[in-house]
Amino acid sequence: MEKDASLPIGMFDSGVGGLTVLKALRELLPCEDVVYLGDTARLPYGTKSPQTVTRYGVQCGAELIRRRVKLLVVACNTASAVALDALRAAYPDVPVIGVVGPGARAACAATANNAIAVIATESTIAGGAYQRAIHAARPEARIVGHPCPLFVALAEEGWTDGDVPEAVAARYLDPVFRPASGTERPVIPDTLVLGCTHFPLLAPAIKNVVPRATTIVDSAATTAEAVFRELDRLGLARTGEGCGQTRYLTTDDDARFARTGSRFLGTPISEKDVELVDL
Amino acid sequence: MEKDASLPIGMFDSGVGGLTVLKALRELLPCEDVVYLGDTARLPYGTKSPQTVTRYGVQCGAELIRRRVKLLVVACNTASAVALDALRAAYPDVPVIGVVGPGARAACAATANNAIAVIATESTIAGGAYQRAIHAARPEARIVGHPCPLFVALAEEGWTDGDVPEAVAARYLDPVFRPASGTERPVIPDTLVLGCTHFPLLAPAIKNVVPRATTIVDSAATTAEAVFRELDRLGLARTGEGCGQTRYLTTDDDARFARTGSRFLGTPISEKDVELVDL
Repeated sequence: MEKDASLPIGMFDSGVGGLTVLKALRELLPCEDVVYLGDTARLPYGTKSPQTVTRYGVQCGAELIRRRVKLLVVACNTASAVALDALRAAYPDVPVIGVVGPGARAACAATANNAIAVIATESTIAGGAYQRAIHAARPEARIVGHPCPLFVALAEEGWTDGDVPEAVAARYLDPVFRPASGTERPVIPDTLVLGCTHFPLLAPAIKNVVPRATTIVDSAATTAEAVFRELDRLGLARTGEGCGQTRYLTTDDDARFARTGSRFLGTPISEKDVELVDL
Repeated sequence: MEKDASLPIGMFDSGVGGLTVLKALRELLPCEDVVYLGDTARLPYGTKSPQTVTRYGVQCGAELIRRRVKLLVVACNTASAVALDALRAAYPDVPVIGVVGPGARAACAATANNAIAVIATESTIAGGAYQRAIHAARPEARIVGHPCPLFVALAEEGWTDGDVPEAVAARYLDPVFRPASGTERPVIPDTLVLGCTHFPLLAPAIKNVVPRATTIVDSAATTAEAVFRELDRLGLARTGEGCGQTRYLTTDDDARFARTGSRFLGTPISEKDVELVDL
């Protein structure tokens, strides 16, 4: 392992969605340097096969590790769901943290009625990684997994408020949270996991269509906390004053990365901080 | 050139969208064999740079030509907009037909007031290929180009009717077709080009939000006619009775290709007719 606290944290995602994780990390660990890789040339991962996503994930990891990082964050639910084992096998000396485990554990801690809903991309739901991670921590939990692929497109388009995102959210979530009366009523989940890094941008619209008491678990914040604990445990946290630097790598169209990425990060990304790489 | 009428027509797209072109081709040329390649591992093309799309397009063309085809259809607006010249240079012996030219010419033939709207992906609009093709045929035309990326996600999700597609269509198209009064009113286009192969699935919702007299130009049908004329001109049309065969190639997840593709083709695709290829 690179036992050097001064090295940056490496993060990757299929695109700009993982910047919601970077945003949470920046708030919690402002001193750390970060190298963020968005594999925009091959996005989205969420509709691709586990084999393909695993191959892409290992290639992203290789690029970051070649540049020397002290810890690797898989800031992508799809890749976290299928590629963590392959990444750990390929790079046994670098700690690897995904977004699925922290989100699943936070949901288990939050639920009072043992009914948890998970929304994510098609492949994340179909792969069952959240379901397995939740059951590992809370075997008695009842889980509803629901793919919501249009949320990704809405977040990328910047349509995060108004009637369109609420209509989409209602069409996806009403069957889970407001099932038709007359049918056998399942237990309504009291906890909703946003199992895709794009979804925090849609949180206001989502909150408007689920019951008010629903706890919304955003895996970006819980992943940042997991990174903090792991660095602390390994004695690799960076201390001191000052603001860490962020460097961005993208596999396609650095100008577009800076433009759409700024929306996800919540602060502007300068094009000069974005480097085009070929994996 | 492969001067053999018995060879199949080769078509490619980034995914399943081009199947709307295949559907139109099947109706017009039922005797022809077709090999259709959907580069699903690398979709969407619509957000990628012209250089990347051109490289992918030439790779798709190489795979089809390696299998011997008599004509190549680029059934993808994004690739038609940027990669036609590169494909013709790489494969000078095979006629190459894209979807942009036929759609643009049909719009020029349809408009009475010389005002044409084009909706497409972000990169197709930004690249300006429709604008150039329309101006080449009708220099005095006024063109409004408007990117509508969410239509792609809606078509892939199968949400082609109901309130969501109409709300999305209204948010995109009202500024073009129903501009706020009080401002200087531009001429309202009388012709709307669906410049993305996904968009014909949304045609009912689109028709409900544009003025009733608007002519909607679907480049799938116009491209099928262009293929018909070109085969006829070259003496390569297949004659006789019987139904041509279609073979499908995909770069990722053949089961998903068959499932979502069936929606675009309008008839079921059997998984056994889909072959996974690595480009």
